[in-house]
Amino acid sequence: MLLPEPFERLVSHFMKLPGVGGKSARRMVFHLLQSHPSVLTEMAADLERLHSSLSFCPGCGNITEGGGLCLICADKMRDRKQLCIVENIEALISFEYAGIYSGLYFVLGKKVSPIEDEYLDDSIIGRLRERVLSLEAKEVIVAMSPRIEGDLTWYAIKDALKDIDVSISRLAYGLPVGGSIEFADRVTLHTAFESRIIK
Amino acid sequence: MLLPEPFERLVSHFMKLPGVGGKSARRMVFHLLQSHPSVLTEMAADLERLHSSLSFCPGCGNITEGGGLCLICADKMRDRKQLCIVENIEALISFEYAGIYSGLYFVLGKKVSPIEDEYLDDSIIGRLRERVLSLEAKEVIVAMSPRIEGDLTWYAIKDALKDIDVSISRLAYGLPVGGSIEFADRVTLHTAFESRIIK
Repeated sequence: MLLPEPFERLVSHFMKLPGVGGKSARRMVFHLLQSHPSVLTEMAADLERLHSSLSFCPGCGNITEGGGLCLICADKMRDRKQLCIVENIEALISFEYAGIYSGLYFVLGKKVSPIEDEYLDDSIIGRLRERVLSLEAKEVIVAMSPRIEGDLTWYAIKDALKDIDVSISRLAYGLPVGGSIEFADRVTLHTAFESRIIK
Repeated sequence: MLLPEPFERLVSHFMKLPGVGGKSARRMVFHLLQSHPSVLTEMAADLERLHSSLSFCPGCGNITEGGGLCLICADKMRDRKQLCIVENIEALISFEYAGIYSGLYFVLGKKVSPIEDEYLDDSIIGRLRERVLSLEAKEVIVAMSPRIEGDLTWYAIKDALKDIDVSISRLAYGLPVGGSIEFADRVTLHTAFESRIIK
């Protein structure tokens, strides 16, 4: 060990975070070392409180403070007839930051992945059906990542909701906007070609 | 605010770290939310203790635990006749991780940069001279970043030590190993050409 133990210990905490290697972790801890002690005290207190102050929304599965409905489910201005199914909370946040959707969500928390022996069990399907029925949703938008698992999940959801009178859609696959055709992979190009829109 | 305040507050702490944007910060806090509460408690305690447990080595300026000499200065196995001058502790750590140097260090903590009105003041030069003399160093290696400021600092250090009987060297400039000539910038290529070695 080259550096004092309190420093290295904090570095090892940061190295466990996603996308952080040894060099970045050391840079981060250096930065903290150079900031005011009160910043660290505050950050430490917020870390300590993170688990105890947050729980999952009983409506959609998003994180929420203090056990009640999350800020989205509690928002009376949102369209309660549209339900977007996302795999996880990160996906939900991406939608929210994009600012393109004003309906409600359902966080699946799982996907269909035979390789990882992962399926939508009865309890998830039960909760999803219950959510769709209680909202009297008009449209269910399945927003899974465009991979095999996403497609399998899409079919599983369609099957699970087939007896309910609700329209089910999934996101369009195609060329990412702002990208170049020359950098698109073969499958994306094929999908974009097959799904071409005649105007 | 889309997410509960305790979550967003921690995100804003992480966003202040170098190289961390909004998306990475949220990913990090999600990761923490999914880890065991004891991990967060430990990390919080280590953060809180960071400042109080660390100080700067009176020998070289590296960080040290509890006010004494740092692990490098205290290491009897290191060559005490070689002194490497680095701009900051990050540079010192890069050398240590590279494992190519076994002498001692002197962390300058400053550089010569007329644009930023930054110079080596008398106190730094005094401490450097004192360090070189007390170690009876045989070689001083100036390891500044290859920029204008690094060159100006090199001249300032050479000038400050000119009456002391010690050999002074600086790192070689040239092509970075593993890179391609086609990606080298003009100045680097020029330097590598001018400094070519006849074997």
